[in-house]
Amino acid sequence: MAWSGRLPCFLSCLFIYTLSPCDSHPHWTLPVRPSNDTARKVSDVATEVAAYADVAKQIIELAVFGAAQNRSYRRLADFTDTIGNRVSGSANLEMAIKYMYSALTQNGLDVHLEPVKIPHWVRGKESAEMIVPRVKNLALLGLGSSVGTPPEGIKAEVLVVRSFDELKQRASEARGSRVVFNQPFVSYGETVAYRAFGASEAAKVGAVATLIRSITPFSINSPHTGWQDYQDGVKRIPTACITVEDAEMMWRMSQRGQKIVVRVTMGAKTLPDADSFNVVAEIPGWQYPEQVVLLSGHLDSWDVGQGAMDDGGGAMISWEVLSLIKDLGLRPRRTLRTVLWTAEEQGGVGAQQYYDLHKVNISNFDLVMESDVGTFRPVALQFTGNDAARKVMEEVVKLLAPINTTKLETHAEGTDISPWMQAGVPGASLHVADSRYFWFHHSEGDSMSVQDPQDMNLCSALWAVVSYVVADLQDMLPR
Amino acid sequence: MAWSGRLPCFLSCLFIYTLSPCDSHPHWTLPVRPSNDTARKVSDVATEVAAYADVAKQIIELAVFGAAQNRSYRRLADFTDTIGNRVSGSANLEMAIKYMYSALTQNGLDVHLEPVKIPHWVRGKESAEMIVPRVKNLALLGLGSSVGTPPEGIKAEVLVVRSFDELKQRASEARGSRVVFNQPFVSYGETVAYRAFGASEAAKVGAVATLIRSITPFSINSPHTGWQDYQDGVKRIPTACITVEDAEMMWRMSQRGQKIVVRVTMGAKTLPDADSFNVVAEIPGWQYPEQVVLLSGHLDSWDVGQGAMDDGGGAMISWEVLSLIKDLGLRPRRTLRTVLWTAEEQGGVGAQQYYDLHKVNISNFDLVMESDVGTFRPVALQFTGNDAARKVMEEVVKLLAPINTTKLETHAEGTDISPWMQAGVPGASLHVADSRYFWFHHSEGDSMSVQDPQDMNLCSALWAVVSYVVADLQDMLPR
Repeated sequence: MAWSGRLPCFLSCLFIYTLSPCDSHPHWTLPVRPSNDTARKVSDVATEVAAYADVAKQIIELAVFGAAQNRSYRRLADFTDTIGNRVSGSANLEMAIKYMYSALTQNGLDVHLEPVKIPHWVRGKESAEMIVPRVKNLALLGLGSSVGTPPEGIKAEVLVVRSFDELKQRASEARGSRVVFNQPFVSYGETVAYRAFGASEAAKVGAVATLIRSITPFSINSPHTGWQDYQDGVKRIPTACITVEDAEMMWRMSQRGQKIVVRVTMGAKTLPDADSFNVVAEIPGWQYPEQVVLLSGHLDSWDVGQGAMDDGGGAMISWEVLSLIKDLGLRPRRTLRTVLWTAEEQGGVGAQQYYDLHKVNISNFDLVMESDVGTFRPVALQFTGNDAARKVMEEVVKLLAPINTTKLETHAEGTDISPWMQAGVPGASLHVADSRYFWFHHSEGDSMSVQDPQDMNLCSALWAVVSYVVADLQDMLPR
Repeated sequence: MAWSGRLPCFLSCLFIYTLSPCDSHPHWTLPVRPSNDTARKVSDVATEVAAYADVAKQIIELAVFGAAQNRSYRRLADFTDTIGNRVSGSANLEMAIKYMYSALTQNGLDVHLEPVKIPHWVRGKESAEMIVPRVKNLALLGLGSSVGTPPEGIKAEVLVVRSFDELKQRASEARGSRVVFNQPFVSYGETVAYRAFGASEAAKVGAVATLIRSITPFSINSPHTGWQDYQDGVKRIPTACITVEDAEMMWRMSQRGQKIVVRVTMGAKTLPDADSFNVVAEIPGWQYPEQVVLLSGHLDSWDVGQGAMDDGGGAMISWEVLSLIKDLGLRPRRTLRTVLWTAEEQGGVGAQQYYDLHKVNISNFDLVMESDVGTFRPVALQFTGNDAARKVMEEVVKLLAPINTTKLETHAEGTDISPWMQAGVPGASLHVADSRYFWFHHSEGDSMSVQDPQDMNLCSALWAVVSYVVADLQDMLPR
């Protein structure tokens, strides 16, 4: 996941590259379905949903104990080991899209690519060194969209602050300095403001550069990157994240009254927007193929680690749903569409263009789902929708009793699905036991080693039961 | 702490540099002490120890709640922020010794340095890159005593194994390869054998180099270094630790039948042994100044991180004991001697030379104590001694009831105190809540950020009560 700030402003050049026809899948058989009333009471819906108990068990059996066991994990391992990380604009992201196009096609699914334009920021070479009071290398990661430094770097005395308020109070000390933000981690949603806006806030009081404590509650000297946002009309100064350890060390030094001087060299630059694609694979609905339950994760990652957790896992379970449904010979009433977004990390860039293109058909979007906070042990389904829709979903999650994840929470999350939810389409996201998510997030630690195959089986089962049943109900979710 | 393998063989050139006279400390007052029987029963000892309850409370009050609160933490922060890490043979270690000599002297203690010769291995520049099946930078840390590579590095195909047994079974595949050990972490004591002996075991079957999965149960792409031991008569090949993540990735690749090629460049070399010192500070005993309770930690560290946990914390609480006793105007019957060892990480090199020099007085060593597994929240005192001595110590730890650490465990640990314990001197070590110790151990993550001031207060209080009371009892511990 990226951050939930404002969207970048380079949404342009939108066109359809290829749209595969909806194949008929004549070999797929239809499951038993409840009767076909149109005006129905809550009790009717409960009865209708409860009739899916056997199908739900079949899906869970296949995903968790059957032939599909550990498949999403193996796919994720193969994908991330083969490609590595996949930042917006990179050759790796292009390779990843080709890889997935090929893999989904080989899986017998309807696949097409929808072209979009995405940001192309490159990190270049970067290094940081404390020179005074002693020489120490500082691990750092420049922030997405940051400008670089001159080739010789920027050497400046450091002003360490713990908050934006403290920066304002000490504005007179900031001129010509490098502001180091040593803000404590409160929550990602709150603390990420320092990464996103720290550079512009520091530039407003005359700083020449910033270093920001990584947005994480735990560190093994691990810097975390992420997108940042220059404010219009404010000088653009280089900005990077350093480790919790180094930020705290400089804070202690400053509290002792010690002078601190740091040199940072960053080769970062922004190139012209690049061509990319959202990857779309689907099982067309047998009755209402134009109506869609959309499942998604994003294929891009940051340019560190393997991007297994953020968001390879979300992408793989969204593919796994189609494989499971296909393996069981099922085909829902409506289309089950998996979309693997591009350039989420830059603010949901691919997804915004998808929305702009497809919003004309918004009335056909039944439910939009995204998994982008990890595929650890599933805890609940998060849901955004009106009361009537929630009543339906409360019945649907009861089908997850065999894997003990029958909890329905409020407010789905997901940068990529938020435009749809804001426009009134019901949305769902996966809530997992994510206590360590931000330890690895946007760092070299985002690797296959944090993933667990059994957790991914459970996520896949949940994801598949919910999406299949909603896609197969007689009526779309109320909105 | 280092590893508990065989000792290196460069113990030589031993002499006393300076020995301060035992000052009389006329301003220190004597606490109330129990009566002076010589032949005593267990109940007498219990009564004698119980009479220290008030003194113990004073020590605890001062260390945990009083003016000394957080002092050992602040000292550790100042020390490690100022010096950084301090590997055997480095200028930083020399600086650290000077810093501590000066700080202890300013604290009004009797301080002297005892010269020793220590290993001087230097890391040099090092890098590793997977070239096939794709290009990926591999984080690594060369292992202490490893030879380097030619300047252009060593490029070799990789054989990944999970154990020494598997290496033997696949010996025919090892010739000319780089063996990657991807052994699972079982416990430090068991798994460290791969770091210590992996290179020689691989060389025996014809490997040209090794990469070993870091000895840790948890990783954020963090390589861990440490000492390793070439076997006599076996070819010395370059050896380094890589991250858990990369070892697991190469294992997965090898399981898929993929060819893996890695290039490693290491500038490591061993220079002639260097001059160094054990730092000794003491409060001379008022009655038996020749009899000693020895408190210790090691001042050296690895050349990564800050060496705050391993073992700056142990060194600082061993200093803190003398400060607390002095602040309270106490002076025990026997000498309280704090020794800050040098070159522990190379196998207790400084401590071995201290033992060789002072073992002639072994009958005067009452108790040897070392803290070298972190100064997190104290859980128990670990003790090695005969039954009679244990009975005394069982009474002593009861004095720690105010901080709820009255547990006495068997088997003290500590590379530096083990020669004394093997020779029959009672030993004690600190058992702390160390579940994360090996996450940071010998890595860039060993920093002040893992330390907690209140935990250090508790460790200091425990350390002080135990050492002071034992030093002040009428009789030395039975042995």
